[in-house]
This record gives sequence, structure tokens and C-alpha cells, in this order.
Amino acid sequence: MPITGMPEVQPGDVIADLLVAAAIAGGTPVEAGDCVVVTQKIVSKAENRLVPLPVDDLDARRALIESEAVRVLRRRGELLITETRHGFVCANAGIDVSNVDAGVAALLPVDGDRSAKRIRDALRAVHGLEVAVIVTDTFGRAWRRGLTDVAIGVSGLAGVADLRGGTDANGRVLQVTEVAIADEVAGAAELVMGKAESVPVALVRGLDPGWFREASVDELIRPYAEDLFR
Amino acid sequence: MPITGMPEVQPGDVIADLLVAAAIAGGTPVEAGDCVVVTQKIVSKAENRLVPLPVDDLDARRALIESEAVRVLRRRGELLITETRHGFVCANAGIDVSNVDAGVAALLPVDGDRSAKRIRDALRAVHGLEVAVIVTDTFGRAWRRGLTDVAIGVSGLAGVADLRGGTDANGRVLQVTEVAIADEVAGAAELVMGKAESVPVALVRGLDPGWFREASVDELIRPYAEDLFR
Repeated sequence: MPITGMPEVQPGDVIADLLVAAAIAGGTPVEAGDCVVVTQKIVSKAENRLVPLPVDDLDARRALIESEAVRVLRRRGELLITETRHGFVCANAGIDVSNVDAGVAALLPVDGDRSAKRIRDALRAVHGLEVAVIVTDTFGRAWRRGLTDVAIGVSGLAGVADLRGGTDANGRVLQVTEVAIADEVAGAAELVMGKAESVPVALVRGLDPGWFREASVDELIRPYAEDLFR
Repeated sequence: MPITGMPEVQPGDVIADLLVAAAIAGGTPVEAGDCVVVTQKIVSKAENRLVPLPVDDLDARRALIESEAVRVLRRRGELLITETRHGFVCANAGIDVSNVDAGVAALLPVDGDRSAKRIRDALRAVHGLEVAVIVTDTFGRAWRRGLTDVAIGVSGLAGVADLRGGTDANGRVLQVTEVAIADEVAGAAELVMGKAESVPVALVRGLDPGWFREASVDELIRPYAEDLFR
């Protein structure tokens, strides 16, 4: 369910308070057991991860991207496929120049898990709501066209979960078991968020209670030693 | 919504008939405007994409994978990251040895779009239901841990759609606009499918009517010329 009617988020705003109020006003109040999905854009604004970036200054843009990246994997024209210090591989170090003021760029949150935890803790402490929180961003993929939303921070929900039993219906041990729950929830949420610029929050209800646990987005980062494409 | 109670699918079975009956029996009948998500496993069985593969015969397994792949991108032990003739990049050419009889392997459908269209056409012609159909499989990703379900065939639903307007809330032209709708729907569906081995079909209801159009999974394949990782 989309949470419509969120105000424009400003540095210092408490996202938990804003989204609870907007959800009530919109007739879909947050409930215990929900997963609250919040886009990077408003998290970066609330955390004042905004830096000046002159419009059309490609040199400044490239320098900012390189300063935010720990590694550039590929480069084509002004597109840089980068690894961020969080371990995410994404275009242009995740720096966002849409939906911010002209001359400003939004950087990724310093620590997406901490951002998610801050929202979750406030929902619990101030509003009495025990939920999970995912912070999402929109990344491209290798090999496949089109962007999808993925988790860049989680609190209270598994990043990766064993969705299947140990054996299949024929008693054979299954070879693949680990599913990227938080990324699938992020993508599901985008399906109700993407149309209007004013929908930076969604609720996903009815997730398996077994997936609610302490977790980190690090579960979703493939370690170098396992990674065949980095 | 998961469609529970599907029977074991056999070669020649008409998936449309089976899923309509199971959905009615389960109290969640298919409705016009739904997107019906069907996993590769039962499509491959219905289309008799089953080949003998002796258990624990690694040489035969490798030969089968290589015969189904057009290219091997990476190789680590018995894991091969392959490109299939459809253009999908996935482990082991998408060959599935779980949930089939011992000594048998299930190959990917020859043409996932045609598989989806066959189900969709039968739902329309026999059951009077105008829906979209996605055939899905479970693939790994570069850089990120955990598998997600993605589309390997679509009929009646966009693979990639422009989710955002041409400009952002500040009037700035948005840089990224193309979202992999069908993959996000596939991932959302897996969230209700993965727990039980007997849930190979799900319904996704409430998708934007604007996304329903003639389409091909080719929209989701990044062309070589654009692909920085192939």
C-alpha cells in the first residue's frame, strides 16, 4: 500500500512521525507486523546528505562520484558503475540529482541499516508500532534491462532467508535455498510507489512472521571471495 | 495471493485449466485484470522439457549444461554461470534437478513468451478471463547475495515500463525512468510462493492497467552493445 500525502522532507525531519501521520490521514494506518519501505531519497534529505553540485558541471559531478565510490568497475561516457563503501554496486555511487533542488545532489545514507533502525526505533518508542523497516534505492542490474528497487538498509527483517525446506517434494536435497527477501519486498513496494513523485513510503503487509528478525543489509552483499563479477 | 492445491503437473497438462480449478477450490478465483505468475518448473513439466540425467553423473550434467548454454561466462567447480539461447544469464543454463524425478532434469521452456501466451490464450478462450501471464524462474545476481525470481516469459504485461513522469517534482528531467516491472512482479509473487513446494502459481492483483500491453521478455534482456558485464 502506498503512503500518499507525505510532505516534502527537510533535513532534521523525523520520518517516522511524518509517515505515521500521512498513513493515518490516507486511511491506511501502519499496523504492527508491517514492513515499512522508505526510499533513499527522503532518508538522505532527512539526514542532510545533501551536497552542492553545480548543474551541468560534469567535472564536479565526476569528482563527487569518485569521492563517494571506493572503486569504479566500468566507465562509459558519464556513466560510472561503481562500488560504494557500503559494498553496493550501482551507477554513479548512488548519487541522486532528481527530486532535489537544482545545484544539489543527494548522497546515499552513511549507514542504511542505521537509517532503517532509527525509523524503526521511533515507530516503536513514539508510536508503539513493532514493524520492520527497509530503506530502498533504485539500481540497475548486470545483464538485464530495467531498474529494480533493492534494499540498502534493513532493520527487523531478514535480508536473505531460507524460503524452502531442506528437501524437495521428492525427498531430494534442494540445491538453492537462499532468497533475497528484502530485495523482493523492495521491488514489490516500488510497484505502488513509482507512479507519483510524492510516494516515498509504502507498507507491505502479510509477510511471513518468520522473516522478522535482527538483520543487516550486509547479508545482501556478496563477499568478494564468492563474487565472480567483481 | 498463492494458488495452493495445484496437482503434480504432467507432460501435456493444460496449466490454465489446472490453475483455474485450483484457484476456485482455494477460494481465490482468477479475476480479469490479474497477473498470473507461473513458475518455470511446472511449465517445463507441462511442455515435457524433461531429459534423463543420471544422478551424480557430473560429466553428463556438465555436458547437458554446455549443450543448453550458448556461452559460459564464469566457471567455479560445478557452478557454471551461463548465457542461454534466450539471452538469460543464470547458473547452469537454468537446468533444474529439484522437484523432478530422480534421474531427470528439467530444461527451460524453449520460448518463455510463447509459454506465457499459451496459458494466457487458454485463460481467455476457455475461461473468459482477460489477464496477463508471467513465467518466472529463480536466478542469482551479480554482486548481491540471495536469489530472486525474475520473468523468463511475459504475455500481456510490460517487461519494462516507464514508471515515472518525464520531470521530477522540481521540474528537472529525470535521468532514469525504465523500471523492470515484470521482474518486480515476479519477485513479489515469490514472497507468497516460496514456502511450500506445492505453490507454483500466484495471482498479483491491482497492477496499473497501463502496464497491460503486448510485450516480450526480450525487453528485459540487455543487448550486448549496452552490457558492460558480458
